[in-house]
Amino acid sequence: MNRCYFDHVATNPLRPEVLDAMMPYFKENFGNPLSVYDLGMNARDAIEHAREQVAGLINGKPASIVFTSSGAEANNFAIRGIAFAMQNKGKHVIVSKVEHHSVLNSARVLEKNGFVVTYLPVDKNGVVDPDTAKKAISNETILISVTHASSEIGSIEPIRELAQIARERGILIHADGVATTGNIPVDVKELDIDLYSMAAHQFYGPKGAGALYIRQGIRISPLIYGGIQEGGRRAGTENVPAIVGMGKAAEIAASELPQRMEHCLKLRDAMIHGVLKVPHVFLTGHPANRLPHHASFVVEYIEGEAMILMLSVKGVLSASGSACSSRALKSSPVLLSLGITSALAQGSIVFSLGMDNSMEDIIYFLEEFPQVIKKLRDMSPFAGGWDAGGNEQDSEKPGSPGYADGDKCYTGG
Amino acid sequence: MNRCYFDHVATNPLRPEVLDAMMPYFKENFGNPLSVYDLGMNARDAIEHAREQVAGLINGKPASIVFTSSGAEANNFAIRGIAFAMQNKGKHVIVSKVEHHSVLNSARVLEKNGFVVTYLPVDKNGVVDPDTAKKAISNETILISVTHASSEIGSIEPIRELAQIARERGILIHADGVATTGNIPVDVKELDIDLYSMAAHQFYGPKGAGALYIRQGIRISPLIYGGIQEGGRRAGTENVPAIVGMGKAAEIAASELPQRMEHCLKLRDAMIHGVLKVPHVFLTGHPANRLPHHASFVVEYIEGEAMILMLSVKGVLSASGSACSSRALKSSPVLLSLGITSALAQGSIVFSLGMDNSMEDIIYFLEEFPQVIKKLRDMSPFAGGWDAGGNEQDSEKPGSPGYADGDKCYTGG
Repeated sequence: MNRCYFDHVATNPLRPEVLDAMMPYFKENFGNPLSVYDLGMNARDAIEHAREQVAGLINGKPASIVFTSSGAEANNFAIRGIAFAMQNKGKHVIVSKVEHHSVLNSARVLEKNGFVVTYLPVDKNGVVDPDTAKKAISNETILISVTHASSEIGSIEPIRELAQIARERGILIHADGVATTGNIPVDVKELDIDLYSMAAHQFYGPKGAGALYIRQGIRISPLIYGGIQEGGRRAGTENVPAIVGMGKAAEIAASELPQRMEHCLKLRDAMIHGVLKVPHVFLTGHPANRLPHHASFVVEYIEGEAMILMLSVKGVLSASGSACSSRALKSSPVLLSLGITSALAQGSIVFSLGMDNSMEDIIYFLEEFPQVIKKLRDMSPFAGGWDAGGNEQDSEKPGSPGYADGDKCYTGG
Repeated sequence: MNRCYFDHVATNPLRPEVLDAMMPYFKENFGNPLSVYDLGMNARDAIEHAREQVAGLINGKPASIVFTSSGAEANNFAIRGIAFAMQNKGKHVIVSKVEHHSVLNSARVLEKNGFVVTYLPVDKNGVVDPDTAKKAISNETILISVTHASSEIGSIEPIRELAQIARERGILIHADGVATTGNIPVDVKELDIDLYSMAAHQFYGPKGAGALYIRQGIRISPLIYGGIQEGGRRAGTENVPAIVGMGKAAEIAASELPQRMEHCLKLRDAMIHGVLKVPHVFLTGHPANRLPHHASFVVEYIEGEAMILMLSVKGVLSASGSACSSRALKSSPVLLSLGITSALAQGSIVFSLGMDNSMEDIIYFLEEFPQVIKKLRDMSPFAGGWDAGGNEQDSEKPGSPGYADGDKCYTGG
């Protein structure tokens, strides 16, 4: 049996060179970066080197990088940190409906603290229309936060256009770059963005390291108060090995990005082409302008969790949505915002590819996938809505895409 | 030249067995704990095993342990999380003056948010009098937070007595256990405490892993919002290797604690005895009821940073205060709260011992220390206040302890 790890948006395997770079900081270079003697200085220098490497990946200044423990922490820090630092200017924040839970739930905390939040709608491909953002802006607006790409549907958002709108109105803009950093080119200067979140384990770095890019000159309240680490912007003894690993992973990502994209695109396109041959399966997210390693679908008459589990028995590892929501047993708000019905959203599945995948994996998967779907539909009480016996091929049933507005995301079949 | 690492309160070297336990989670077991397939389950099981190990070290229930990225995060989470969850009950919080910056600065954030904070004084040994806490309580009080032991002065605080007072008045109590966990016995049931902060790298575990014990049934607001990790109490992809390492380090600490304490006590007492032979050097913190691995002093007529650097040239690694404040170039508020003058507080030095130290280290150190002090005093413009030539032995000068109230911490010389 093949083992196909198709869940790179949940987490990536750590690159061996990254682990090698981390190892001295688990051993001889174990010092606290704040210590004044050599052992501390070594750790401090290592962090500053990592800061340069991470800044290099997104074309930012090293002094603009604040290390965090995760992308979720970076998102909380960005949204609540800016909101609380700027609340004298206004108490209105704009986010999109396809944000990660760490953004959506941070926005909800703001609402509990007297802020007003506008949740921007998206089109059927999950893309924000910059005009809706423009219209949502008031004199009270202090921040726009839109994901650079959703890890659930892969669509890339028009961050540069949103940043221009924000700039014209003197509003700050944050993008959640957890799914994009190391997977597509990111240039914070070209995007003209103020804040950008990253997570190392999304680009073959370690868990436990994230970062927030904060354009110089921006005032932000800390999320974690205490010592003077990270220029007083994020307290707590630095996770030196993980930060070193994030730096190394960023350096590798910067040099390998074109090959990574080419490799993943080829596999992804073959996968989408094959999967959409199965009837009643729909691509979610934008068909073209999406993460190169990302293919997401909704499969009618099937419960996502069962599909994931049965695929995993075949060695195919995938997710029913974002890792942070897949076990929450709720319909994904991201999918609902695309106009997908709650019932169809239950059949959501996300495949995300990486450098450890090959065309052989895709071929194997495309042999197994239709059989798994058939088996599940044969057992399904939903598919049995027409035919309790379940013997008839679903593929012969009339189309019923389950999109609330009757519209269909493209089917390649 | 010997190398004497005497800065275990800044951070500990990682135990090789702990790193060994972590390694599979950097390699084959790299899955996201929220993933439903085997790779995710392995990571999830590893976290739950670590939760049991950490709970075991403090005699808590595993379900009461929430993993964080550091002790500072645990302290922020405890204080702000309880304050915001309980603010309908009242807006008064009590902390001591010998708290870590992560507690003091969290308290200041509460003040900015309409809370009233009482900062409990301490006696000349840095110990809180439970009666002062009792008197500070009002009907508005919702939380008392006192460190179990300060890493700057080593004194152990009367947490059990404070917990009894809190319990009688229906108030929650949190203790910062970053300096104590793994270094002295901690039993949250016996202490009758509600919340307890820990940091793995303080007991030979990795950086990047901390935990907050939260007694079951207590409502707390998250510090990091997002996915459903840690029962919805702390979002962000778990740092699985670091959590596994924290668990293993906790397990080792639980079994080795008596030997650790015996080993460190012997070295520490020899160190204190030797250091106090140097004139105009005073022990800070409680002379007896203190962390077994901790010896802290103020040295008159000397600037702490210079002393640390000159000692480090001799291979003796120490700190001028808490690692989080040593580079902040301010007089330590903890030392000032003991009645030590700002001038004397400048000459603060903390030695903290560990299993990697030997009596040979102490003997070597006690040979070097008096020479370093003499050299610095010979150069010092402060010591030169009486004698610009600086040739005369300071030891022949009359005592001038520099305590603001004229009182003296004991000198063993």
